[in-house]
Amino acid sequence: MKERLFNFNAGPAALPLAVLDEIQSQIVNFRGSGMSILEVSHRSKWFEEVLDDAIARVKRLLKLDDRFEVLFLQGGASLQFAMVPMNLALDGKPVDYVDTGTWSTKAIKEARIQKKDVRVIASSQDKEFTYIPREIAVTSGASYLHITSNNTIRGTQWKTFPETQGIPLVSDMSSDIFSRVLDPAPFGLIYAGAQKNAGPAGVTLVVIRKDMIERAPADLPTMLSYKTYAEKKSMFNTPPCFAIYVLQLVAKWLEETVGGIPAMEAVNARKAAMLYDYLDSQDFYRGTAEPGSRSMMNVTFRLPTPELEQQFIAEALDANLGGLKGHRSVGGCRASIYNAVPTEAVEALVVFMKDFVKKNG
Amino acid sequence: MKERLFNFNAGPAALPLAVLDEIQSQIVNFRGSGMSILEVSHRSKWFEEVLDDAIARVKRLLKLDDRFEVLFLQGGASLQFAMVPMNLALDGKPVDYVDTGTWSTKAIKEARIQKKDVRVIASSQDKEFTYIPREIAVTSGASYLHITSNNTIRGTQWKTFPETQGIPLVSDMSSDIFSRVLDPAPFGLIYAGAQKNAGPAGVTLVVIRKDMIERAPADLPTMLSYKTYAEKKSMFNTPPCFAIYVLQLVAKWLEETVGGIPAMEAVNARKAAMLYDYLDSQDFYRGTAEPGSRSMMNVTFRLPTPELEQQFIAEALDANLGGLKGHRSVGGCRASIYNAVPTEAVEALVVFMKDFVKKNG
Repeated sequence: MKERLFNFNAGPAALPLAVLDEIQSQIVNFRGSGMSILEVSHRSKWFEEVLDDAIARVKRLLKLDDRFEVLFLQGGASLQFAMVPMNLALDGKPVDYVDTGTWSTKAIKEARIQKKDVRVIASSQDKEFTYIPREIAVTSGASYLHITSNNTIRGTQWKTFPETQGIPLVSDMSSDIFSRVLDPAPFGLIYAGAQKNAGPAGVTLVVIRKDMIERAPADLPTMLSYKTYAEKKSMFNTPPCFAIYVLQLVAKWLEETVGGIPAMEAVNARKAAMLYDYLDSQDFYRGTAEPGSRSMMNVTFRLPTPELEQQFIAEALDANLGGLKGHRSVGGCRASIYNAVPTEAVEALVVFMKDFVKKNG
Repeated sequence: MKERLFNFNAGPAALPLAVLDEIQSQIVNFRGSGMSILEVSHRSKWFEEVLDDAIARVKRLLKLDDRFEVLFLQGGASLQFAMVPMNLALDGKPVDYVDTGTWSTKAIKEARIQKKDVRVIASSQDKEFTYIPREIAVTSGASYLHITSNNTIRGTQWKTFPETQGIPLVSDMSSDIFSRVLDPAPFGLIYAGAQKNAGPAGVTLVVIRKDMIERAPADLPTMLSYKTYAEKKSMFNTPPCFAIYVLQLVAKWLEETVGGIPAMEAVNARKAAMLYDYLDSQDFYRGTAEPGSRSMMNVTFRLPTPELEQQFIAEALDANLGGLKGHRSVGGCRASIYNAVPTEAVEALVVFMKDFVKKNG
């Protein structure tokens, strides 16, 4: 029975051990309340403190000024695919999307279901979404431009964000929120399912510029309007308290243990370089993303045959390295190296990869 | 620092201590996986086992046959207020509602936002929602009849469900699911935010009759269609894994420790009788719900003055009895005595109430 696995899951994914230890110590009696965090009222001082601290930490980590609100929703990025056009599409104005694969494609589908005037202004479908498009021409007068900042499946990531001529940028950052320094200025809305880099499954972090909130049509269902969450500090109804609590602990760990986003980014850059440098130094493993579009979070690669890939994944697990299977839609291998994956895990993976080549290369 | 409080919270609410102990023992290394339940993939055998077991247990507890599907959603009952009319209202056919207070009123509001032909066929607003209407005449050809089986705020509960002439009954059972024996036959859909009687905040249990799933319009946003959840076993996207895990543990506790719903109902009846019998035996405290409509889950009562109520709530907390404040919209006192509130807690409350009268009556 393993004590702890090196966890390369794509999401739900690794959490800092310190966060898990903290949860364990508080799960029966939360901060002397005589109740679990699962049992305290969302209107109690116990939970209000968690919520306020979570909001404050997210604001500091993302360098958000008073133009932005931090909201906690449910339903994951998938519900945001629908809520974004529902709330932010302006009458008679198109909505722009860049298609960089599965998640972008799903976001586009939801805007089309709502019969919005969808313009896919760039796509990397021509090369199986293995790169991030470089030439982006935003539609004049568009309601917003939607992008997916990091594609977990293809291992691609926007290095710099597109110039939008003042049109609000909307980004799904589920898989790279808190992983690197961010200038929030061009963003009208950022959303992130927490289960990759920010916490557990069950809460969606939404950062919204206040003027965008006003776009919400008055006749939206209450729970589908960003205005509801902004006006009620995400407490119109019972929020997913435990998931917000874990997100708060992760944010605390980022600030107080790691030392903030710049420090986290430096660690992430070192971890990614370790893997990509090794991939580039040999020809048994082959990285699948174009070098200029490589993700710092999800490193995707192939072995010479699917059989070797299967063997690699199985033997890695025996060596205490878990979650290395590629997404079921594309196959291959993938190492997700989110914030909470320690450098030692990546070092161990590279050692294992080298050893595997010696035996099977 | 209290070890454990007697917790009368209305929701999030008490959980069985055995469930909290189990979570604590597994939070760092879940069933020998080397990962926390928060870190395992939702597509892993670890989580699939949790999900399958949760579904099987809910089916057994609610005596559901193959006509019904068990789904896990997010967004609480509040999102269901919108999803029910969105999915189940038939073209040109009215939707019937009974208004028994706040939660029913909100459900009605969401159906009206969607411009459905809403018929409020009965209401207890005339007496401040202190009773459950008895004479119900369902509209011929209605899409469904929506009720709230238990009103947490006013402490009222349907004892028997209305006769609907074959029209599917839809019920918000957030606050009394699993509390008493249920015949699912007349129900087209049952939903329950888990945080009162079934688990933590962050997951909504939905039981739907299969023919109702087919009503979903094809152009609904994917995440708002029951069909999406039914077709993908609630895994179209990442579900709220941890909340489902806790719900599974609660269901296991109900089956294996309590001995099933009939045994739970007997305990709940005894707990409620203890409080109501005491209320009826004196005239310092005054129950607010009409005797024939009293809830087995939420016992609402007043003291002679608001000042005495404040004093009562504060002194009760000092005596290790928490969560006795009434809902902020109505004031007064409320003891929520859900499944996980032990008989000893209710006994302790009655002792405290008697003692309080002696000193202040």
